[in-house]
Amino acid sequence: MNIREEALRVHKENKGKLEIKSKVELKTREDLSIAYTPGVAEPCLEIAADNNAMYDYTIKANTVAVVTNGTAVLGLGNIGAGAGLPVMEGKALLFKEFGGIDAFPICIDSEDPEDIIRTVKLIAPTFGGINLEDIKAPECFYIEETLKKELDIPVFHDDQHGTAIVVLAGLYNAARLIKKELEDLKIVINGAGSAGIAICKLLLKAGAKNIIMCDKAGALVEGNKDLNQAQKEIAEVTNRDKEEGSLKDVIKGKDVFIGVSAAGALTKEMASSMSKDSIVFAMANPTPEIMPDVAKEAGVRVIATGRSDFANQINNVLVFPGIFRGALEVRSKVINDEMKLAAARGIANLIDDEELREDYIIPGVFDKRVCASVTEEVKRIAREMGVARV
Amino acid sequence: MNIREEALRVHKENKGKLEIKSKVELKTREDLSIAYTPGVAEPCLEIAADNNAMYDYTIKANTVAVVTNGTAVLGLGNIGAGAGLPVMEGKALLFKEFGGIDAFPICIDSEDPEDIIRTVKLIAPTFGGINLEDIKAPECFYIEETLKKELDIPVFHDDQHGTAIVVLAGLYNAARLIKKELEDLKIVINGAGSAGIAICKLLLKAGAKNIIMCDKAGALVEGNKDLNQAQKEIAEVTNRDKEEGSLKDVIKGKDVFIGVSAAGALTKEMASSMSKDSIVFAMANPTPEIMPDVAKEAGVRVIATGRSDFANQINNVLVFPGIFRGALEVRSKVINDEMKLAAARGIANLIDDEELREDYIIPGVFDKRVCASVTEEVKRIAREMGVARV
Repeated sequence: MNIREEALRVHKENKGKLEIKSKVELKTREDLSIAYTPGVAEPCLEIAADNNAMYDYTIKANTVAVVTNGTAVLGLGNIGAGAGLPVMEGKALLFKEFGGIDAFPICIDSEDPEDIIRTVKLIAPTFGGINLEDIKAPECFYIEETLKKELDIPVFHDDQHGTAIVVLAGLYNAARLIKKELEDLKIVINGAGSAGIAICKLLLKAGAKNIIMCDKAGALVEGNKDLNQAQKEIAEVTNRDKEEGSLKDVIKGKDVFIGVSAAGALTKEMASSMSKDSIVFAMANPTPEIMPDVAKEAGVRVIATGRSDFANQINNVLVFPGIFRGALEVRSKVINDEMKLAAARGIANLIDDEELREDYIIPGVFDKRVCASVTEEVKRIAREMGVARV
Repeated sequence: MNIREEALRVHKENKGKLEIKSKVELKTREDLSIAYTPGVAEPCLEIAADNNAMYDYTIKANTVAVVTNGTAVLGLGNIGAGAGLPVMEGKALLFKEFGGIDAFPICIDSEDPEDIIRTVKLIAPTFGGINLEDIKAPECFYIEETLKKELDIPVFHDDQHGTAIVVLAGLYNAARLIKKELEDLKIVINGAGSAGIAICKLLLKAGAKNIIMCDKAGALVEGNKDLNQAQKEIAEVTNRDKEEGSLKDVIKGKDVFIGVSAAGALTKEMASSMSKDSIVFAMANPTPEIMPDVAKEAGVRVIATGRSDFANQINNVLVFPGIFRGALEVRSKVINDEMKLAAARGIANLIDDEELREDYIIPGVFDKRVCASVTEEVKRIAREMGVARV
């Protein structure tokens, strides 16, 4: 199969990938009088009296906006809001297939964060949640933080948190396999962009104590004036021994390498310098930081990548359908850190001790149990924390 | 059937009326690689190179935004953006059922026209057309005019133009029945809000020469300082004989009454004072300006209302599915006046001379020929006028 030709054919023949369908009959005058005038006035009046009734009578109960401005689409970079639409449609399709969630693409034609924030706030009534997608750093941080403060529905930047959650799920199981505690693992995260920083924050929240973040310029060390704001903040809570130098220097003796960087960033030599029972998550796409066979030769024990053709695929699709499903089912006001941790546990717990192996620390993308497990964990925590409406 | 109970039940059981479905298979890793990464990058790149490719590869080709701010919902008034959602969902459902168009509700939480304009412009990439709905006057005029100028896709305020087009279609056929020309008809339009003014403008465009607009305060006369801006403009091109007085005064001897006003506005006595072979479109909802049996007793020859339980139902659903279908199929940049006239002809022409009767001047709502006929007329004119992209 020629992927280019086939992808263009499928997109063109179908004129995109989504359609809107009716959930109610509309064949008779009586149907019309219920779904439209005069009957439709009744749910309108219920909502006018109590806005929460939107969850009872409208698509808000099960609908998420997939919001982008097209500034960081896949590996394609800033291609514009319209050119991002095929990806957003694809994302919506995954929401439906894996989570039973109705998601609709909102492509916002602006690079100004204030435009994104204002637009999302203004169109929020229709939606039970907001999934931010493919918006470049550092704007994505400000946009997400502001919307979280100002909206009463969950706001979730999947490129950051989806990745972070599935990494944590994998790391829970890798640690279990090598019989170490998360808090004892010495971890290097290579790539200090939005995904790397989100992974770091979630691992810290989960109890990791020993993380060094690394970028092209080397290890992030507190006090370095060249760091951007997000990096400065993360440098204050990681690398407490203030190790300096390049990845090659700081990876020595570490237990875990987490790469959200670029092909070839972790050489065989560097991998060999890691501790016994080392763990490598090499998630650069499409070519990982180190190929699994090379890592294995270097003595790495557990290897995961972003690719479907190797074992242990780290893929966001394990996360976002279930975490939104859970949030929607309890009409949550937020998706907070505790719910993210719960989602990671929901994924990790599906593999029991007997099944756990070096090449099976993460359930497969088509494992139907994943969404249900994440949903249940997320609902439970949302209710415990009082952020659920029901 | 208790409409209130049944409407609430249907809306609640289904959690709203719309769902998003996939048009492509998504069962295997190969499906994923075409609909999502890496294959999805191909249509993205095509669009990045030429924005028109959105019509080839995305839902833009067949998707319309149903935009409201909830300020004039049905007869309920300003109930807010969220409370308007059930109506917008209903509208989307009609778009799909009658026009095969995917429509999605955008409820904008603001009464500031600039917010509506800016939001619609920013989210426009996803859509092939914008249907404005239930936005109050006079803001609706400014919003529509501004968006028409600034967007390169059709913008259509259905409350104004949908109504105007179906009235014109009905009037074409009523005039044919009584063997008069549109330009010779003496017409009174009662109700000088957004619908009344839109009807008036379209009738003028279609060739009507003799129209008086009337409001609660009486006939609109050029020079009256109490008129709002839209009324002032319309008073300059109507009522050239400067007839003054109430509806009771000006309706005497006229051929046509068009009511977008309130129950009972046209008394039996007023109807009796109209010309021989008079025509009454009494569209107040749910109770018409005059009941059909009363109008008949008063000697009116052709009677239409907005209701489904009387003959000759004047209903927008005859218009918006076909006019957008036509516009989308030729990727039109606009829906202009000539396309509106074409839509009216497309409806009227479906009834031939043998079928034409006092109680059959307008096809029924479920007449499947209507959308196809409107679509073809609209496409033809769009192409003739050079506003079509294909």
